[in-house]
Amino acid sequence: MRGYSIGKDDYQARLRRIEGQVRGLQRMIDEDTYCIDVLTQISAVTKALQSVALGLLDEHVRHCVADAARSDDPERVDTVITEATKAIERLVRS
Amino acid sequence: MRGYSIGKDDYQARLRRIEGQVRGLQRMIDEDTYCIDVLTQISAVTKALQSVALGLLDEHVRHCVADAARSDDPERVDTVITEATKAIERLVRS
Amino acid sequence: MRGYSIGKDDYQARLRRIEGQVRGLQRMIDEDTYCIDVLTQISAVTKALQSVALGLLDEHVRHCVADAARSDDPERVDTVITEATKAIERLVRS
Amino acid sequence: MRGYSIGKDDYQARLRRIEGQVRGLQRMIDEDTYCIDVLTQISAVTKALQSVALGLLDEHVRHCVADAARSDDPERVDTVITEATKAIERLVRS
Repeated sequence: MRGYSIGKDDYQARLRRIEGQVRGLQRMIDEDTYCIDVLTQISAVTKALQSVALGLLDEHVRHCVADAARSDDPERVDTVITEATKAIERLVRS
Repeated sequence: MRGYSIGKDDYQARLRRIEGQVRGLQRMIDEDTYCIDVLTQISAVTKALQSVALGLLDEHVRHCVADAARSDDPERVDTVITEATKAIERLVRS
Repeated sequence: MRGYSIGKDDYQARLRRIEGQVRGLQRMIDEDTYCIDVLTQISAVTKALQSVALGLLDEHVRHCVADAARSDDPERVDTVITEATKAIERLVRS
Repeated sequence: MRGYSIGKDDYQARLRRIEGQVRGLQRMIDEDTYCIDVLTQISAVTKALQSVALGLLDEHVRHCVADAARSDDPERVDTVITEATKAIERLVRS
């Protein structure tokens, strides 16, 4: 149980849209679109990706972290939370 | 002259790789890959996109902003720089 | 129990250092320090602040979220996790 | 001429406010304020710092970069723009 099975179709739809946006960026470069407009589109794609990441993270805390907390296995809790914090750090830094 | 004509092939290659990474994310979701690994991959894609954006921005300042500065048209300089600052702000905030 | 009582002194020490860095920025502006050096210092202060935030967030998940998960009160779990996700979102977006 | 002499008082006022906010964070930790509220305040301080950085960067491009562009010294232009791009990269990554 990975925690995001409920919204799987939703994530797939969002990622397909992001894939289309990345192809759109290739077209923009190909057609010599004005730099600033390409940058605006890159910011939009980055935001869409981060929104997928935040959704996955919410479900991860809701399922994996909460399950671990209920397990009475302090080592497992520690592992799962340390892992989550590092993932959040990578998101904040990227 | 859009400013990024020199590195066009390089940008296209990088964006094709990013497109492949986004398809890889869809596969990861499909195969119920562990959340944290999906998040790590999303951070990698975000970094790759930001790196394309920083490259485009560098060339934009190098060409469009520098050209405007040499034009002796203060209004054009102002427009181009305000536009660049706003693009930087969107990148920093995204 | 706020979750960060253990490391309170450590947080205070880090925040005092950040306060000193912000005063340093005022001195830099006052002495007409080269822009790029001021910007480098601002990036350092931002990173230091984010590092405090990530530490607090780790402890928050470790204590408040884990406690809620053990409480068998689904509404409380939902409230606490939604709140944490929104805080992460603000960090990622800022 | 550092480029930000015009708005110097404004920058100082903003940095003094940020210094006050950082002292406020110390008080919040001292009074065991709820984690999430501390995190919200950290996001506000980070945004305020980034806003100072974006202002400085705008003026830097407007003055130093534009001056370099007008200098007919390609090496100087290259140095100044490479330096600005790296500062932007540090801001985006922090």
